[in-house]
Amino acid sequence: MPHSLLGKRVLVTGANGFLGSRLCAALTAKGATTAGLVRTNPGPRAFLLARDFSNIENILTEFKPDAVVHTATRSTAGRTADELGDMIRSNIEFPSHLLLAMEKQSIRHLVNCSSSWQAINGDRFEPFNFYAATKQACEDIITDFTHRGLRSISFRLFDSYGPDDTRGKILQLVVDAVLGQRPLQMSPGYQKLALVHIDDICRAFEQALLRLDNQTVPAHEIFSVCSASLVTLRELVIMVEGITGLRASIEFGARPYRPLEIMDPRTTYPLIPGWAPGIDLEKGLRDCIAASRRSRSRHVNG
Amino acid sequence: MPHSLLGKRVLVTGANGFLGSRLCAALTAKGATTAGLVRTNPGPRAFLLARDFSNIENILTEFKPDAVVHTATRSTAGRTADELGDMIRSNIEFPSHLLLAMEKQSIRHLVNCSSSWQAINGDRFEPFNFYAATKQACEDIITDFTHRGLRSISFRLFDSYGPDDTRGKILQLVVDAVLGQRPLQMSPGYQKLALVHIDDICRAFEQALLRLDNQTVPAHEIFSVCSASLVTLRELVIMVEGITGLRASIEFGARPYRPLEIMDPRTTYPLIPGWAPGIDLEKGLRDCIAASRRSRSRHVNG
Repeated sequence: MPHSLLGKRVLVTGANGFLGSRLCAALTAKGATTAGLVRTNPGPRAFLLARDFSNIENILTEFKPDAVVHTATRSTAGRTADELGDMIRSNIEFPSHLLLAMEKQSIRHLVNCSSSWQAINGDRFEPFNFYAATKQACEDIITDFTHRGLRSISFRLFDSYGPDDTRGKILQLVVDAVLGQRPLQMSPGYQKLALVHIDDICRAFEQALLRLDNQTVPAHEIFSVCSASLVTLRELVIMVEGITGLRASIEFGARPYRPLEIMDPRTTYPLIPGWAPGIDLEKGLRDCIAASRRSRSRHVNG
Repeated sequence: MPHSLLGKRVLVTGANGFLGSRLCAALTAKGATTAGLVRTNPGPRAFLLARDFSNIENILTEFKPDAVVHTATRSTAGRTADELGDMIRSNIEFPSHLLLAMEKQSIRHLVNCSSSWQAINGDRFEPFNFYAATKQACEDIITDFTHRGLRSISFRLFDSYGPDDTRGKILQLVVDAVLGQRPLQMSPGYQKLALVHIDDICRAFEQALLRLDNQTVPAHEIFSVCSASLVTLRELVIMVEGITGLRASIEFGARPYRPLEIMDPRTTYPLIPGWAPGIDLEKGLRDCIAASRRSRSRHVNG
């Protein structure tokens, strides 16, 4: 197995997203040449994907990646036909066309983002929602392409977090509410979270890109990107209070748990060999809170 | 559990297909009121589905089915972007829209056609091809909707056969070649087939419609529609020779096995309680051969 990403050309789908943008920066810092594949707002290092996906093969021909990292994803409530269609197109149809174009261009390495929600009971497929079913479909389709020469690693991602997260995830909502001294209505709060820092997640993806060069591993491996320990939402709030020195005004139980709420995330998929999360939640939370304070101060002063 | 289909209103998707058309006739014979949902050539008892699926809810409102049987399916070689898109639209997007429309109209019973190809190793998901991956996706999406009130039975179908089969399946190809005394190029022919007669399959679907009325069974059950015994392709040819009294001119080994060819079909999914295949392969083959002879004679005389 080569021990370096130096010179490796990596195309990252969803490069404007939380994971995609951090991953581009992390891979570039390790010496890889990255380009993004995005559906809106292409920066100087990104390709704009056509609405009907028809230009994927041209993009692959132009950038000539050694590997593709597929972080692009679409999650909606799934209550309308348009929302279902959106998720099918983004989470199933787009990766299918991507895989076909990769096959035609003999690009054989894919790192894929799956979701812990695909297996609400940890050990077998039982989707949390329609989104999770579409993510499972993508993983299944990748398995089919691995019968045709592709080599892939799929990561079942748990809860990700990090500074400057604008996705509206629960950790950031708590931090914002505490710093802003605003009330927040929540579920009873006893569900456990498997929080992994974005920098740790990026290291897992680096490890996957190296591992795909090893021809002796199975063609489609599935690994978890999961934390070593779990915290309940209530414990998380107490940690944020401790770090900020501020009292939270959280109304626990003001909302019900979501249907099928995962109270105790578990998985039977192992971590990728050579990787374990390294950033302590306390340390990671301090960074997030510091970043939020800087952002708030800019908004106040700006 | 009620013991009759009398008066039950059943909408059958893919009603122009081999299974769909036989099923409509079988259910009608048992006293059910059936209507088809088709994409082309709607007969007097069928609704024409809009290309964008936008009229599904109107059709449900008009026909008011108690249950839907989803036999519509699309299988292509999956080598072009158009072929992949076709299968995604037919096997994933259409059933998703159907399920959403059923949910809105409080139609809670679905019998679904899955494929034995979803599990080439019998016991776990490993798709035979892209088609099988899309069929798995449909099953996964049904599981999601069963969390939202739907009750469903999915049948993993093995090899189906019956008189007047125009699908180009291997059994009919052998019968046609032997009756027409034409040569046929084939794989080495040692793969085993799990042949189930279409009339037996229809009875399994009738059983499923009755079972869905039983509120105590799990919300999404998966059963096999598999034969009691297996025959190799070579054994099948010998049976056809015996019944017809004609020598086949089959070049075994002129073609390779397909990639991932399933040599010994197995499954861990049980048969639906109360059902077992009843039609002996010898008897079923005689019927098919007799039907083919009648058809040939009509063509010669007509």
